Amino acid sequence: MTSGPSHTQNTLRRGIIELAFGEPDPALLAVGLVRRAATAALDDAGPAMLAYGAPAGPPALRREIARRVAARESCACTAADVLVSGGNSQALGQVLTMLTAPGDVVLVEAPTYNLALGIMRDHPVEVVGVPLDDEGIRLDELQTVLGVLRAGGRRARLLYTIPTFHNPAGVCLSSQRRQDLLEIATEHGLVLVEDDVYRELVYDGAAPPALWALGGGAPVVRLGSFSKTLAPGLRVGWINASAGLLERLAASGVLTSGGCVSQFGAGVVGRLLAADGYDQHLAVLRRTYASRRDALAEALREHLPAGCSFATPAGGFFIWPTLPAGLAATALLPLAEARGVAFAPGARFCTDGDDRSLRLSFSLYDEATLREGARRLGAAVADAQAGRA
Amino acid sequence: MTSGPSHTQNTLRRGIIELAFGEPDPALLAVGLVRRAATAALDDAGPAMLAYGAPAGPPALRREIARRVAARESCACTAADVLVSGGNSQALGQVLTMLTAPGDVVLVEAPTYNLALGIMRDHPVEVVGVPLDDEGIRLDELQTVLGVLRAGGRRARLLYTIPTFHNPAGVCLSSQRRQDLLEIATEHGLVLVEDDVYRELVYDGAAPPALWALGGGAPVVRLGSFSKTLAPGLRVGWINASAGLLERLAASGVLTSGGCVSQFGAGVVGRLLAADGYDQHLAVLRRTYASRRDALAEALREHLPAGCSFATPAGGFFIWPTLPAGLAATALLPLAEARGVAFAPGARFCTDGDDRSLRLSFSLYDEATLREGARRLGAAVADAQAGRA
Repeated sequence: MTSGPSHTQNTLRRGIIELAFGEPDPALLAVGLVRRAATAALDDAGPAMLAYGAPAGPPALRREIARRVAARESCACTAADVLVSGGNSQALGQVLTMLTAPGDVVLVEAPTYNLALGIMRDHPVEVVGVPLDDEGIRLDELQTVLGVLRAGGRRARLLYTIPTFHNPAGVCLSSQRRQDLLEIATEHGLVLVEDDVYRELVYDGAAPPALWALGGGAPVVRLGSFSKTLAPGLRVGWINASAGLLERLAASGVLTSGGCVSQFGAGVVGRLLAADGYDQHLAVLRRTYASRRDALAEALREHLPAGCSFATPAGGFFIWPTLPAGLAATALLPLAEARGVAFAPGARFCTDGDDRSLRLSFSLYDEATLREGARRLGAAVADAQAGRA
Repeated sequence: MTSGPSHTQNTLRRGIIELAFGEPDPALLAVGLVRRAATAALDDAGPAMLAYGAPAGPPALRREIARRVAARESCACTAADVLVSGGNSQALGQVLTMLTAPGDVVLVEAPTYNLALGIMRDHPVEVVGVPLDDEGIRLDELQTVLGVLRAGGRRARLLYTIPTFHNPAGVCLSSQRRQDLLEIATEHGLVLVEDDVYRELVYDGAAPPALWALGGGAPVVRLGSFSKTLAPGLRVGWINASAGLLERLAASGVLTSGGCVSQFGAGVVGRLLAADGYDQHLAVLRRTYASRRDALAEALREHLPAGCSFATPAGGFFIWPTLPAGLAATALLPLAEARGVAFAPGARFCTDGDDRSLRLSFSLYDEATLREGARRLGAAVADAQAGRA
């Protein structure tokens, strides 16, 4: 797409290639599948879909999710392990409401998903960042933070982590660190809130196992979602966690009163998963987004000057280049916009204000537009270097 | 209906007339209207309905709500005065997250909607009850509570109130008290959270004006909903408030990240309101529920022993009889269940444990079943009186 509708969350600006927005291309949303499922579900089970629903979500959807998770992740999962959510943002809000107390420390990766920080700001918790490298969160740094907190008589309640196809950094937590992180969490009673929204969007090989699936008794709350694969507007996702944690989350007063937060959309998704078409749809997404990733990565290698570096992500939506020493992403942005390209500056994602990197999303545009975006970005970096010189 | 599907929020028990559940009769949900609107909206605006939506909700729905509110309540209302919610439970949770701080006092009516108390329990606030009489919340008691708090150096942040067709008490706040309450709220900076979910279900005359519509600059957050009129499972409602309060609520991190919490359902409702049929549907609901109310009230007058008293509500779903002196509703419940009828005991709705009343809903059953329920209830009260004697 090259111009955006004004009624979506992010409004595209004329003449600017907007690489800041981490949302699926509207042209790739599963409109046909949703339409078929919605009409079939309303015909067959209309009143049940439209009444107050069970707080944990429609049993049929919970069974379908459990079936898929068990098959695709080779782990045990039944409907009892699934709580339907209204997407990962709603789920994260619910986790914070139900599992934290005022003054608690919540750990995040630095960088982390910027809008998750906004959700945390609405709660009376203290957010502390732990650095990330090419293998995911640094566990030596995590141990240091936990030690400092303990020495001060405090404890971290949650760690919000995106171990698979990280937003914004694109990295995956290494296999060894997954095991080690689970041990640390068990030892410290630290609940790992695993944002796993990009798992199905894997372009090279297989996605690494989820922390939740590796399990081993560690306290993990895994947030899964259909927002990137079917449609964000459905507001349907799910939570996997141990029985005890799931029970605490399901005790939410909002669920007890209003029922499942996405009852209607959940009924549609349940029906959609029970029919054919989702796997073929996912295959199209993977092929399309992989090609876009390749186009953007290749063009960045061509157009970014020496001194810029980035890793090519194996899944997800984002490339996270680091700028040459001395350049700040926030200062680069107006120069880039003058050249007709935009991005999300690193400082938005970093609790410590680190601004050396920038987030580029390859989800929203076709290959030619992404290549042109990379060319403009390269020109903007050259402008910045010339201005500095 | 006489038996309930197990996948809805409340499961009916065989042989028991369940007068405890305050939910619409599934047979009266607007399945046809929703089906038509859903397919039309997906055909015409599929990707826009299914993408991340504007945090405040789809502009088309906000305009339709504003148009209806302005016309039906004879007040000024534009789309800018409307924030789409995921129903009143989600909205109340959002209000508590965004407008309270740890330790704040939240005032409620005594009795109040029991499941609202559950939503408040998830937040670090102190809940204090203020008694109600036949004209709604007692303002002398409210002044006393505010005075005690002030003397202790504290302030009440919010008052959660159901001034129109109260749940559970069925009463309406009188016209004079509406004016006086707005003055008190302005004077004390007390935000009135007006749960206005039953407004369209009025059976005698017109519903009194909303506190929000009376306005006059007082801080009012009015929660409106389509849960009782279209379908609870859509999870679509709205919030009206002054620009400042609406801005604070819309700044929610969950909205900023995920967009409108009920984007898909909101798209359907927007389309539905723009088409014909909703007003005719409301007329059917009013006629049907009014007849059920009459049947239950008449049968209660026949079957309840002397010493029981109740007012007949002019709207909403509930009759709230008070038992003869010496009888407690919670103790009556097993006797009633043995007779094949259930209700919600008063203690569930009262912050002070007052258990003299019971909530009966007339929304779920036809007239004959309601009459039989009243007969069984009368027999249970007689059982209790005999047991006591």
